[in-house]
Amino acid sequence: MTLRLTADDVTGVFAIMPTPATPDANDPAARETVDVDETARVVRELEAAGANAVMLTGTSGEAFALTPEEWRTVTRTAAETAEEMAVLAGPTTLNTRTTIDRAKFARDVGCDGLLLGRPMWCELSPDATVTFYRQVAEAVPELGIVAYDNPGAFKRPISSWDRLVPIENFVGVKYVSLGPEYWEALRQVRNADGECTVLQMDAYLAAAMTWDPDVPAACWSSSVSCGPAPTMALVAALEAGEWERAIALSRRMARTFETFFPEGNMQVFGRHTPAVVKARMNEAGFMRAGPVRPPDPETPEAYLEGGRESGRRWRELAEAVERGEFD
Amino acid sequence: MTLRLTADDVTGVFAIMPTPATPDANDPAARETVDVDETARVVRELEAAGANAVMLTGTSGEAFALTPEEWRTVTRTAAETAEEMAVLAGPTTLNTRTTIDRAKFARDVGCDGLLLGRPMWCELSPDATVTFYRQVAEAVPELGIVAYDNPGAFKRPISSWDRLVPIENFVGVKYVSLGPEYWEALRQVRNADGECTVLQMDAYLAAAMTWDPDVPAACWSSSVSCGPAPTMALVAALEAGEWERAIALSRRMARTFETFFPEGNMQVFGRHTPAVVKARMNEAGFMRAGPVRPPDPETPEAYLEGGRESGRRWRELAEAVERGEFD
Amino acid sequence: MTLRLTADDVTGVFAIMPTPATPDANDPAARETVDVDETARVVRELEAAGANAVMLTGTSGEAFALTPEEWRTVTRTAAETAEEMAVLAGPTTLNTRTTIDRAKFARDVGCDGLLLGRPMWCELSPDATVTFYRQVAEAVPELGIVAYDNPGAFKRPISSWDRLVPIENFVGVKYVSLGPEYWEALRQVRNADGECTVLQMDAYLAAAMTWDPDVPAACWSSSVSCGPAPTMALVAALEAGEWERAIALSRRMARTFETFFPEGNMQVFGRHTPAVVKARMNEAGFMRAGPVRPPDPETPEAYLEGGRESGRRWRELAEAVERGEFD
Amino acid sequence: MTLRLTADDVTGVFAIMPTPATPDANDPAARETVDVDETARVVRELEAAGANAVMLTGTSGEAFALTPEEWRTVTRTAAETAEEMAVLAGPTTLNTRTTIDRAKFARDVGCDGLLLGRPMWCELSPDATVTFYRQVAEAVPELGIVAYDNPGAFKRPISSWDRLVPIENFVGVKYVSLGPEYWEALRQVRNADGECTVLQMDAYLAAAMTWDPDVPAACWSSSVSCGPAPTMALVAALEAGEWERAIALSRRMARTFETFFPEGNMQVFGRHTPAVVKARMNEAGFMRAGPVRPPDPETPEAYLEGGRESGRRWRELAEAVERGEFD
Repeated sequence: MTLRLTADDVTGVFAIMPTPATPDANDPAARETVDVDETARVVRELEAAGANAVMLTGTSGEAFALTPEEWRTVTRTAAETAEEMAVLAGPTTLNTRTTIDRAKFARDVGCDGLLLGRPMWCELSPDATVTFYRQVAEAVPELGIVAYDNPGAFKRPISSWDRLVPIENFVGVKYVSLGPEYWEALRQVRNADGECTVLQMDAYLAAAMTWDPDVPAACWSSSVSCGPAPTMALVAALEAGEWERAIALSRRMARTFETFFPEGNMQVFGRHTPAVVKARMNEAGFMRAGPVRPPDPETPEAYLEGGRESGRRWRELAEAVERGEFD
Repeated sequence: MTLRLTADDVTGVFAIMPTPATPDANDPAARETVDVDETARVVRELEAAGANAVMLTGTSGEAFALTPEEWRTVTRTAAETAEEMAVLAGPTTLNTRTTIDRAKFARDVGCDGLLLGRPMWCELSPDATVTFYRQVAEAVPELGIVAYDNPGAFKRPISSWDRLVPIENFVGVKYVSLGPEYWEALRQVRNADGECTVLQMDAYLAAAMTWDPDVPAACWSSSVSCGPAPTMALVAALEAGEWERAIALSRRMARTFETFFPEGNMQVFGRHTPAVVKARMNEAGFMRAGPVRPPDPETPEAYLEGGRESGRRWRELAEAVERGEFD
Repeated sequence: MTLRLTADDVTGVFAIMPTPATPDANDPAARETVDVDETARVVRELEAAGANAVMLTGTSGEAFALTPEEWRTVTRTAAETAEEMAVLAGPTTLNTRTTIDRAKFARDVGCDGLLLGRPMWCELSPDATVTFYRQVAEAVPELGIVAYDNPGAFKRPISSWDRLVPIENFVGVKYVSLGPEYWEALRQVRNADGECTVLQMDAYLAAAMTWDPDVPAACWSSSVSCGPAPTMALVAALEAGEWERAIALSRRMARTFETFFPEGNMQVFGRHTPAVVKARMNEAGFMRAGPVRPPDPETPEAYLEGGRESGRRWRELAEAVERGEFD
Repeated sequence: MTLRLTADDVTGVFAIMPTPATPDANDPAARETVDVDETARVVRELEAAGANAVMLTGTSGEAFALTPEEWRTVTRTAAETAEEMAVLAGPTTLNTRTTIDRAKFARDVGCDGLLLGRPMWCELSPDATVTFYRQVAEAVPELGIVAYDNPGAFKRPISSWDRLVPIENFVGVKYVSLGPEYWEALRQVRNADGECTVLQMDAYLAAAMTWDPDVPAACWSSSVSCGPAPTMALVAALEAGEWERAIALSRRMARTFETFFPEGNMQVFGRHTPAVVKARMNEAGFMRAGPVRPPDPETPEAYLEGGRESGRRWRELAEAVERGEFD
């Protein structure tokens, strides 16, 4: 048995892709709302652009809002479309056993790894978190596990990296914070008996590298679904040690996020993530994300417009990169 | 089309029943872990004891931890077993459409209503909460909807009762708080255009009646699954206006809860609810709740022992009631 | 040395009085804003009405908003005015030493006890809370300490009653919650080596007594500053075991609070407590509380009007009690 | 009337100095615990090292734990000792008027500005926050106001920069977060009608500059009280555009913080800030911070040792800088 995604494979750009939705997808009576053709097209585009992996069905990918059938559709479509690029399924559900069933499906259709969040009806304690990750990891030893550490969705940050990293096929983390909590995570990962890559968001990557010489030039990015050029260029610059170029890109990226997080408040953003993300993607024009699926978050128009403005800025940035403005 | 459960039907004792589990149910490899015979037996016992309804698969019923097949098994079993007693299914999932699918299943197997919580991956705003309840209610107009207001599970309390009560088949609330929030809920319900019963926990019922002359002698109770006699006696006393008897029962009930909530802290309890509840039930001896299903909350032994002690105290209380000590 | 206020003295009605303010008191340039005559008058009225104690300068009393001179003025005025009625000073500040200095002042001017909150710039852990209470208690062994357990103000609830009750002159708690946390507090107090009375709010008192046979008919009340008759009548009824009368009063009290807590939300109320309380008092007409002192909470008019409506309802209730409607 | 500290003056290194404590300062019976000689010595050393300002009596400076007399002592001592270096007093108290009185004292003894937090007994809403800052600013128009934005201490982050920046003498912010909230703050400050410098922590400064071309090479630093060389070198490198040197320093700084924040958790750190900071300073050897003043946070030994280890690492870094290792 071979591990399909190792910690060494967790490098470069790990793309987040919303699950493309048919035009009726906001209607609670609609079923089979995955736009399969668009899903395949985007996967091909991301691979063509050089993304190292695509990570499916986290929050932006509406893991929670898909029917079981839709979840299988998007997972199979991506797995069958990607050629060299790694595919990570997002099997997070409300419990361990349904998640394991999904993980095995992902394995069987050819996925390489999992972007794995936690059950969140009852908050999992640190001990319960370790047990959960261990049980899923053991059920699919072929797959590399990337922890999805979203404290807003799963009610608390993961805090016991020292006990997760030693799990054989635990290979990475999709991480979101900067500052003391991040330093503590890095410290635990570094000292643990095992290999694990902490992936930061693209716009955080240069910042994170001002603190740690060992942080690899690796990131997750949902912005690639607005156009992959800026993030690919950023990682290339950081790999090449070209700080000035990296920072020039990073600053432009930050400007696109300025209108993205409503009120600059992560809790408010957490109530509206898929709606704002999809407004951004639809406006940027790289992909057709479609409407948000129920439960409808009833997102205020101002928040949606913030998403759209962010999408326009990213598109302009992508065009500038493609014109060679940052070479 | 007839509404199977009206606001007038939301009265008396609404029983919470854990989903009985087979001995292997803690194993993530186990499937079909519903102890069907015990499920049917407990439903019959609750009906025989005079409970007005049984509410399935909330937190104690491990809605989140059941596989889809298991959820259908427990729902069908209860619906087919109950005779006059109302059966409320618990179709809460991560999204509107899967919940509607479960609600329709519940309708088709003969349930009368729904104990309905909210999707909780992304916190639902008040506006989103109203849309969610409206969409589910409209999909199953035959069923009476009882809102499951669990702020810990669903990330915030429901606050817009004034917009929920007017929904035709919105008939009740399983409520948990006392104090200003409760008074505001009562005020909104009273002033709204529609009928809706606010169900308090049995041990809170006398307390709630010290504030409002219109509060009906109606409650939810998971303690009935430790033995129904005390709760049935309490409601009978309150209906008869026998305050002294009601308070004598209420005080004994409160004493059984003294060891139930770890550290007296609802957030800690929320991490371990099914484990502590099941330890309590198993010890009380009225039903075989079985082990907790994954995700294993890794509940500390002291919390489990608190649950067991609570179960012993309830059993003693039930025996005292049966001996006529409170007549 | 005699303890001036024992646990046995913590009984009946402990009145909360806002610190009466001169008309210019909202102006940050104003100094000496204590309306001394009104302060003395209200203390006399409360004593005449039969209150067992007056508790000064908690949140409603604007402990935080008074200058040191004003704090001494209100403390001395009350101490010198009261005859038999106990006076509890409110010496809560940002640190132990300044609080001790105030406590000694209170002792020297003749106060009997302290309503003592915690420093709150840095949240005090349970261990730090015990040390703080112990150090203040030891500095003024003549005074009875009543803990002011306000989780919103002091960032967390007190949780280690088992280590506070044994402090010699720790005699009571001004408590605010109902439910599991309260049951845990009662359990710890009951089992601790020492005497201590848990005071509930007047409108919670009947509710609390539905759970515990040992809860004394004792409460704190800020509503007495809208007119003392209803609270005095409630406690008298409970002492006499007249449940029906007590509940009739309790229900009318609850109705006056219906508009008091903005949105039924304690966190919102916590931002505006003195403003809403003073609007209520000023409208009820029993005392002239005057304007709120800086920092001005910029309270929305709707919240102030909710306070005024609550004051009108309480006044009507007081008049009904005085007319003998509840005899 | 001249503004003594303008937004243009908010540049370079703004030093945080704990208030040096006499050996008995942990005793609640001690008074006059300011080590005046050490205070003056450290101010002189910081000025000699090139710090642009010293900011007194925030959390590390134990503003909350000083008696009024001690507060005046440390404020006067620093003001009278500094020559060219700006001195910012920390007049945060529980209310507007006492804070204004302290601000005027600071003005009269020659301070240049204020590091100004908020009253925190009742959480201030955004509206109330603006009123508070405006009223204090108007009372001392000669002094430059630097907002102390500590969400843990003052219960919420400041969010209405657009209304604070236009206040004439509002010139800067001591800021603590990175990410969306920080981007929103920058956006508001940039678009507001007025000048205001956002100061980041030294170890965050390079990170912050990866996002914004307009962020000045300016920071606050409590680490300078462990030895100023690293922070002075960092700012010099950033001013000179020497990114590699800046990042090399930043990475070493981050390593010293690895053991500083207990469990990497800012809430836990917030309970123990002065104790951990002073353990760090005392170990680093640049200054004698002395013991923590009451309320004693009862800090666990492991947290204190984390502080000491951080101090040792900073001292080694300072020695390396002084040896020219980063030239």
